[in-house]
Amino acid sequence: MTDGPSLLLVEDEALLLLSMSEVLADGGFALLEATSGHAAIEHLDGGGEIHGLVTDIRAGAGPNGWEIARHARKLFPTIAVVYVTGDSFAEWSAEGVPDSVILQKPFADAQLVTAISTLLNCQPPAPPTPSPG
Amino acid sequence: MTDGPSLLLVEDEALLLLSMSEVLADGGFALLEATSGHAAIEHLDGGGEIHGLVTDIRAGAGPNGWEIARHARKLFPTIAVVYVTGDSFAEWSAEGVPDSVILQKPFADAQLVTAISTLLNCQPPAPPTPSPG
Amino acid sequence: MTDGPSLLLVEDEALLLLSMSEVLADGGFALLEATSGHAAIEHLDGGGEIHGLVTDIRAGAGPNGWEIARHARKLFPTIAVVYVTGDSFAEWSAEGVPDSVILQKPFADAQLVTAISTLLNCQPPAPPTPSPG
Amino acid sequence: MTDGPSLLLVEDEALLLLSMSEVLADGGFALLEATSGHAAIEHLDGGGEIHGLVTDIRAGAGPNGWEIARHARKLFPTIAVVYVTGDSFAEWSAEGVPDSVILQKPFADAQLVTAISTLLNCQPPAPPTPSPG
Amino acid sequence: MTDGPSLLLVEDEALLLLSMSEVLADGGFALLEATSGHAAIEHLDGGGEIHGLVTDIRAGAGPNGWEIARHARKLFPTIAVVYVTGDSFAEWSAEGVPDSVILQKPFADAQLVTAISTLLNCQPPAPPTPSPG
Amino acid sequence: MTDGPSLLLVEDEALLLLSMSEVLADGGFALLEATSGHAAIEHLDGGGEIHGLVTDIRAGAGPNGWEIARHARKLFPTIAVVYVTGDSFAEWSAEGVPDSVILQKPFADAQLVTAISTLLNCQPPAPPTPSPG
Repeated sequence: MTDGPSLLLVEDEALLLLSMSEVLADGGFALLEATSGHAAIEHLDGGGEIHGLVTDIRAGAGPNGWEIARHARKLFPTIAVVYVTGDSFAEWSAEGVPDSVILQKPFADAQLVTAISTLLNCQPPAPPTPSPG
Repeated sequence: MTDGPSLLLVEDEALLLLSMSEVLADGGFALLEATSGHAAIEHLDGGGEIHGLVTDIRAGAGPNGWEIARHARKLFPTIAVVYVTGDSFAEWSAEGVPDSVILQKPFADAQLVTAISTLLNCQPPAPPTPSPG
Repeated sequence: MTDGPSLLLVEDEALLLLSMSEVLADGGFALLEATSGHAAIEHLDGGGEIHGLVTDIRAGAGPNGWEIARHARKLFPTIAVVYVTGDSFAEWSAEGVPDSVILQKPFADAQLVTAISTLLNCQPPAPPTPSPG
Repeated sequence: MTDGPSLLLVEDEALLLLSMSEVLADGGFALLEATSGHAAIEHLDGGGEIHGLVTDIRAGAGPNGWEIARHARKLFPTIAVVYVTGDSFAEWSAEGVPDSVILQKPFADAQLVTAISTLLNCQPPAPPTPSPG
Repeated sequence: MTDGPSLLLVEDEALLLLSMSEVLADGGFALLEATSGHAAIEHLDGGGEIHGLVTDIRAGAGPNGWEIARHARKLFPTIAVVYVTGDSFAEWSAEGVPDSVILQKPFADAQLVTAISTLLNCQPPAPPTPSPG
Repeated sequence: MTDGPSLLLVEDEALLLLSMSEVLADGGFALLEATSGHAAIEHLDGGGEIHGLVTDIRAGAGPNGWEIARHARKLFPTIAVVYVTGDSFAEWSAEGVPDSVILQKPFADAQLVTAISTLLNCQPPAPPTPSPG
């Protein structure tokens, strides 16, 4: 199906961004990409609806992944959130948002696709979130 | 693995039926297809065991998706149920069956595959349902 | 805490109604009681917000428990639903609403209190449902 | 409600057995008690249906709690299982049965009641298990 | 069972503190109480192990409930967290910690006991968290 | 992403081993393969960390799948476990380990990938398990 849910992918390592982007596009998601926390915030504030966020904890210049996710949830209260990380795994229980998943690098492609799909599939049957734009 | 679980796919839009059918066949499922509610009921009543149901809510002539799923559960009490819908999302909490998933169009291919797989994987270790045929 | 969430309790056997009512009141819930399906519908249509429904499947004159729950979910999409039954347990997978619990008689008091509490605690952080009245 | 589900409680420390027995009886459960693994097996093999098992891991003479639970599940495939333990907590992931809960001593009364109630409430809507007797 | 898991209860309204304290003590928990965010932090930093946190979002002088919970999780990564709130419910999806529950006032006593018990019962079978003291 | 989590795949039927191996490698997992229970134990005891186990119940010479999984969990307490089986499905509730999944043959490729991915994604944010080697 074309035009699947839109995901914002935040990753400052170019190769990893490319790899994750291909995997998620193959799964049928529409992707927005950001290589820094600053760019991530701009996408979120841009006015279009975003259904999921996949973010590294270390996200280059600007806010880190924990901060990006909190900002995203203030705008889109039910947005699906997947964190990926090399060394911040232990901070998730204090810094993560509710109903999020964290993947420790290296993870398999299938884990990423399953994580975001499962979260999107479990969204509550609430009235659609009004667009913030 | 060949000859995976059999799914009944009910969708009256030909292009969407084709798209979902390909995605599910790629995932290894054996597919039965119906382009109307009437045809769906015939498949269910046909006597062969069916492990999962993927149904649009608007299902052309005959019963709608809510009715098809209830009929399916009467014949196969543990059949996995995934609804897909454009505009009936809000009715799920009143009209859906327990332990079902509803996907709002447009959804990603990976969401469909994850939804049906997750439901099938969670089936209880009960004795196999006797075939109704 | 006084003035807990309001539950509608539907049961046509007077002794069982009394027993469940006491158990739920001890747990801190505010109770509305109905001894028939007709009375249950009247309560639901009465305009006040109701947070949970505990209903027998055989509910005396009027709609049965399956029908009462569907009506309740149309008015209050996130209302918690617990069914109790002696002999209709097997119909739940076809007739129940999503995210409901069914208790087979005889059940323990603690099961009833845990069932309704767990469902209420898992309600999604959606904006409060507007009152239908 | 009288005559709630029957639980088998296995504990070789008399004071703890008494304490747990009172808490579970207050919750409305019908109790069978065993102060050794041998006695637990006798109860299970006795022919009556048992819906839940609460067992210490160190269970006096005879099989330990891990073995008692496996035996119980062979007779009653969907029996609810709660382990309580002082020092065997770390073995649960290897020795426990699926869909069981383990409580580390000291635990609160409410944890015990919630654990067994939650497991009983989640039993699948399968056809009733035939009595082994 | 005496000496159950220790809970820190943070609430600046004296009557509500008393009410919740009684309910949780009846459930078998050992309680520490704080009537301000400052006092809550002192308890957490005091060196003793704390297994659960029940906190109002508005917590009087000092950090609010969101901040108290993050601090608690930094010290005790698997501590159970229940928030109670009158008007901050909508912020939970952005400000809450993972695997927490939020109860909207007015809630029933049974909801509070079930919430904290369920979270404690689901703690992973990891090695005990080393005390920070 | 290269170098995903390492899975041990235990299957004595060569064609099925090949089929599952391809599916899991496509999903991005690093695979170790064993065609007997004896070989499985050698891999587990070999000293390298293994994050997931996919095992047939009938596993050729040596321990069966139930025994392999218990051995694996003793070495790696949080290892993900997926059983596949033709005729031992009914034994899972007594012989399986907690938080495992069992797939009845014939299953779809997508079910296998979803099962192991979901289990790995749900691993608790505990400190990394020390390698047993």
